[in-house]
Amino acid sequence: MKITVIGLGLIGGSMAKDLRRTGFATEITGVDNNPEHASEAIQLGIVDRVDSLDSAVREADLVLITIPVDAMLTLLPEILDRIGSHTTVTDMGSTKRRLTEAVKNHALRRNYIPAHPMAGTENSGPSAALENLFQGKIAILCDQEQSGPQHLALVEKMFYALGMKIAYMTSDEQDHSTAFVSHLPHAAAFALSNAVLDKEDRQIIFDLASGGFNSTVRLAKSSCAMWHPIFEQNSDYLVESLNVYIRHLEHFRDVVLEKDSGKLEEMILNANRIRPILEGENSVFRKNEETITRFYTK
Amino acid sequence: MKITVIGLGLIGGSMAKDLRRTGFATEITGVDNNPEHASEAIQLGIVDRVDSLDSAVREADLVLITIPVDAMLTLLPEILDRIGSHTTVTDMGSTKRRLTEAVKNHALRRNYIPAHPMAGTENSGPSAALENLFQGKIAILCDQEQSGPQHLALVEKMFYALGMKIAYMTSDEQDHSTAFVSHLPHAAAFALSNAVLDKEDRQIIFDLASGGFNSTVRLAKSSCAMWHPIFEQNSDYLVESLNVYIRHLEHFRDVVLEKDSGKLEEMILNANRIRPILEGENSVFRKNEETITRFYTK
Repeated sequence: MKITVIGLGLIGGSMAKDLRRTGFATEITGVDNNPEHASEAIQLGIVDRVDSLDSAVREADLVLITIPVDAMLTLLPEILDRIGSHTTVTDMGSTKRRLTEAVKNHALRRNYIPAHPMAGTENSGPSAALENLFQGKIAILCDQEQSGPQHLALVEKMFYALGMKIAYMTSDEQDHSTAFVSHLPHAAAFALSNAVLDKEDRQIIFDLASGGFNSTVRLAKSSCAMWHPIFEQNSDYLVESLNVYIRHLEHFRDVVLEKDSGKLEEMILNANRIRPILEGENSVFRKNEETITRFYTK
Repeated sequence: MKITVIGLGLIGGSMAKDLRRTGFATEITGVDNNPEHASEAIQLGIVDRVDSLDSAVREADLVLITIPVDAMLTLLPEILDRIGSHTTVTDMGSTKRRLTEAVKNHALRRNYIPAHPMAGTENSGPSAALENLFQGKIAILCDQEQSGPQHLALVEKMFYALGMKIAYMTSDEQDHSTAFVSHLPHAAAFALSNAVLDKEDRQIIFDLASGGFNSTVRLAKSSCAMWHPIFEQNSDYLVESLNVYIRHLEHFRDVVLEKDSGKLEEMILNANRIRPILEGENSVFRKNEETITRFYTK
């Protein structure tokens, strides 16, 4: 199968590597507006060739768009304009309402599957691409009734080839949940980084930085080009999640300030309930080694 | 050398393992008021024997106290009352002002070295003990001029045997820096955990929980028995650090809310400056593979 990957960064590069390794892709064409990334992707064997957008999408069975979500808003309609009627298109962006809105009346809307694989690292570019990045992780597919069943089946098969589990939900549910699971932790890390960088005596803090601090602030290394438009496109739900988080931090601060020992203990023990959840005991996705799909409805 | 470890949990157990492996300790006696932990520590080969506090500290060359900081406040003066005049005592607690205040007039104050190794995990108990937990990490030593030079030298030698680097500062500087580096990330993780557990639609969030969310909330699994008294003893500096963090989160939220694209970009790019710092390029401690010590003064 001929696959075209548009955007040869961490996500596009990692997908290309695994789709080739698993035999899902036989030919991979890359498109990147950064000539250095394009030639790096060829050198690293991530793609077989690079091509212009027009030519690369015209012949493809499957087009993966893995670029920042602002560029996606412009490019997705242009790609749907250029593909053949058999071609399937999917994107790996972190926000979905704006994007699905932008193509809702397109003649080839049913060729498009809005998707979001919940995987990544704080690094970027083709050299950041990793094998097995998606193994065991969850891919969100949105508004599946608005896509053609053959196109949906092909994208599901691709995610299963990557070892992923699939969650089906609306674009609105995906943007709301992702605000809490992904966008809030990133915003919190950016704010923590800024808070510490702002301090006059920051050198001592950085010298002492240990495991706890480093893992909490790690996401603050993440790419501005990728995250800036995500925050903009999901601003309402991000603000909602930040407000919930700030309220809980203020509550924590007040309990510490009031030296309410019983209440402090209660807050910590309540937070500890996250342990079995993070270790997968409460999730249908992790109890079972088999691939499981789950449908959400509001 | 005869070492007594009081508190056979993650820190005490991990230190005992490495001090034996490196030959620093020839005999290790354990003390734990939890009989299950005591017998587990013997079974795991962490200590040679368990003993009563009185008998275990009387014969020791070096006493390590690795228990929650509230119990430490009571126990440290009692231990100084019981040791011989040659015995060195050190503790591994995360707060230092209250503890040094509690023993400042003790006749054997100079036998005591207030210390804090910046290492750990979110797990606890003897079975959580790990080899090489301290390798390459930083140990803080406080108020060194108030300890006898032989006692100081022995504790420094112990940290070097563990592969640690040493930072010297006052108890006040240690509590202030540690509030930002360690206590704030823990409080933030507890608050994030509570925020998400509080949501009605939390199941979808837990199902989707991915690398970014998990690493941000990981510390919320940490032991209440350990963290509750740390937050209480360092409440003033913890509140200061929470206020700085909340202010930066509110600022981030306001910029997102106001859709100030330029300002949002500036905030993310500023936060990105943490990358070289976390990767050690700006720290005297990490540039060099050699053991380096650093002295801080306000």
